[in-house]
Amino acid sequence: MNVNVGKKTSHYRTVAFDTARNSVLLIEQRLLPHEFKIIGTRDFRDTALAITDMVVRGAGAIGATAAYGLAQGAMAFRGSDLKRFSTHMDKVYHTLATARPTAVDPVNAMNDVRQAMQPGETVAEKQSLALASAEEFANECVHFCEEIGRHGSRLIRNGMSVLTHCNAGWLAFVDVGTATAPMYAAQGQSKKFHVFCDETRPRSQGATLTAWELAQQKISHQIIADNAAGHLMQHGEIDLVIVGSDRTLGRTGEVANKIGTYTKAVLAARHKIPFYVAIPLSTLDWTIKRGRDIPIEERHEEEVLGAWGINRSGKREYVRVANPSSGARNPGFDVTPAELITGIITPVGIFKPKDLWRNRQKLGFKS
Amino acid sequence: MNVNVGKKTSHYRTVAFDTARNSVLLIEQRLLPHEFKIIGTRDFRDTALAITDMVVRGAGAIGATAAYGLAQGAMAFRGSDLKRFSTHMDKVYHTLATARPTAVDPVNAMNDVRQAMQPGETVAEKQSLALASAEEFANECVHFCEEIGRHGSRLIRNGMSVLTHCNAGWLAFVDVGTATAPMYAAQGQSKKFHVFCDETRPRSQGATLTAWELAQQKISHQIIADNAAGHLMQHGEIDLVIVGSDRTLGRTGEVANKIGTYTKAVLAARHKIPFYVAIPLSTLDWTIKRGRDIPIEERHEEEVLGAWGINRSGKREYVRVANPSSGARNPGFDVTPAELITGIITPVGIFKPKDLWRNRQKLGFKS
Repeated sequence: MNVNVGKKTSHYRTVAFDTARNSVLLIEQRLLPHEFKIIGTRDFRDTALAITDMVVRGAGAIGATAAYGLAQGAMAFRGSDLKRFSTHMDKVYHTLATARPTAVDPVNAMNDVRQAMQPGETVAEKQSLALASAEEFANECVHFCEEIGRHGSRLIRNGMSVLTHCNAGWLAFVDVGTATAPMYAAQGQSKKFHVFCDETRPRSQGATLTAWELAQQKISHQIIADNAAGHLMQHGEIDLVIVGSDRTLGRTGEVANKIGTYTKAVLAARHKIPFYVAIPLSTLDWTIKRGRDIPIEERHEEEVLGAWGINRSGKREYVRVANPSSGARNPGFDVTPAELITGIITPVGIFKPKDLWRNRQKLGFKS
Repeated sequence: MNVNVGKKTSHYRTVAFDTARNSVLLIEQRLLPHEFKIIGTRDFRDTALAITDMVVRGAGAIGATAAYGLAQGAMAFRGSDLKRFSTHMDKVYHTLATARPTAVDPVNAMNDVRQAMQPGETVAEKQSLALASAEEFANECVHFCEEIGRHGSRLIRNGMSVLTHCNAGWLAFVDVGTATAPMYAAQGQSKKFHVFCDETRPRSQGATLTAWELAQQKISHQIIADNAAGHLMQHGEIDLVIVGSDRTLGRTGEVANKIGTYTKAVLAARHKIPFYVAIPLSTLDWTIKRGRDIPIEERHEEEVLGAWGINRSGKREYVRVANPSSGARNPGFDVTPAELITGIITPVGIFKPKDLWRNRQKLGFKS
């Protein structure tokens, strides 16, 4: 999407590849929203480290990064010995797969690339297949998000205010994003609307990443405390809610997403405000039978007890906000039941949550 | 309540009076939770400044501070000329009344003291009546909170988890508090329970003041992000909600309180968790006819865009969390409708919100 650097507006992807330098190009997300910088990784190990250290984060974005990292590893191989190449590729795969051990997207993305390399009969052929396949993976990710935007943009009408939670924006994917895709598409259709970004404590991805994205894109927006949406809904100031999803149960339509999503769904239902979830097909889980079986990560209490920001000297700093002798509970996600969700916006159309299973073939279910 | 300073546990009030030094003693709340310090004001002007600068905050606490401040001003008068004394007292009253112009508690408290001074026939008599009346006002404030605790403590049973929002604790009153009063009383009855404190963004009074109070009182507690309560309720981890109130409509039972209170009430109703509001009679508003007529303060956006805390060097500092080019909406309060409130805990008993008007005589209504 567009980024305003100095006086110039340029188009960037969250993840890209520099074939001349055999380098994965990443937006250094840890510096956002206070500094915009593109880094290029030196080799596949460096790329794995960028995933581990969260230079890049977000399911789609780390998938594409791993796909490119695998191609980067392939291209770095010198020689024509297929057996040695295969051993080398196993090492590359393993290094990238373990960069964030609980994430499934890097593994799925690399499996795609590996499969595409199969027909190659020489190292050189396999190398170029790897590169082409990684590029295709990234392009498909962009295409899927654009399709989400195309389907979702019809929900946004002139004069609306849209609430979103956390960051399911282009920084979490290769471009466009999921929850933000309908907004960007609606902007492309010259619709006028306003976005409220939930701050999204404890990690504040709404106040930092989503607000930064919307500012770059010149979309009218304001940040609100997570406490404020109920009041705004009471006063008719929110017309539509669109959020992303970390895992969507194909069998029940339940949605696991950032902590606080459930609360917004409950409020929206009370106020009869449409509540939509935008997802790529890769977040669909066809295995788990009940939302309560989704494992919920309990994260470090320091996130709740303080905040990261920029101090008066312009330095990034953590301040302890809470009483020093108190502890915290910090569940990272919650599960929203299907009954509270108006629709699931996917690249192949908008579905009622209860209709996902019936449409499973269309939604990429493989038995 | 009890405060642990070093190895010693001592009893303190939020507001007290040192007759020997003619000084109002205040807990310097701006240093909490990171430092505990009692300050003594030099004169009534200094006391007014402490209210303005929020050394002391909370409806009950600033009421008592103003009452003591009026007595402090009276005691400082030298001479026996009643007319000059009266002029002097008008100045004292005006200085304290305008310290926080929108607050009603200081004015009500000082009117009580002024009325008590009436029968005095000499300056000396009026001075001692002022002091006695201010002391009585503070003691009554404590007594009211204790009565709230006595009525409310029966709601807390062994093994319960109680959620509270913001700070309606003893720091907001002279002692004991309102939402916290049932907890302190239940502790006195040796009940075992756990408290979840909503962080309460944007000003984080839950994470700072309420958590500090509970830690001093050795009550088991954890801070949670405002986003987390819904998830905990889904998993049966919250049995009861008790919050305070800034204004309670006697005619409708609607409750204006810190932003985010309404959201918790909606969640509690969905999960059939009892939701109680603890109030002193002074927050009852018998005039306003509908909750939507309560003016809602829109506060400064900097509160939402960053956070105050202690940095690694131990200094209090503000960090900007949000995207620098984004703005915020910051409504300070919201209104919870009567239908979501299980009961209103008052010093004279627990009432259904709809029954306040019927019981108005008992609740101090003056026509």
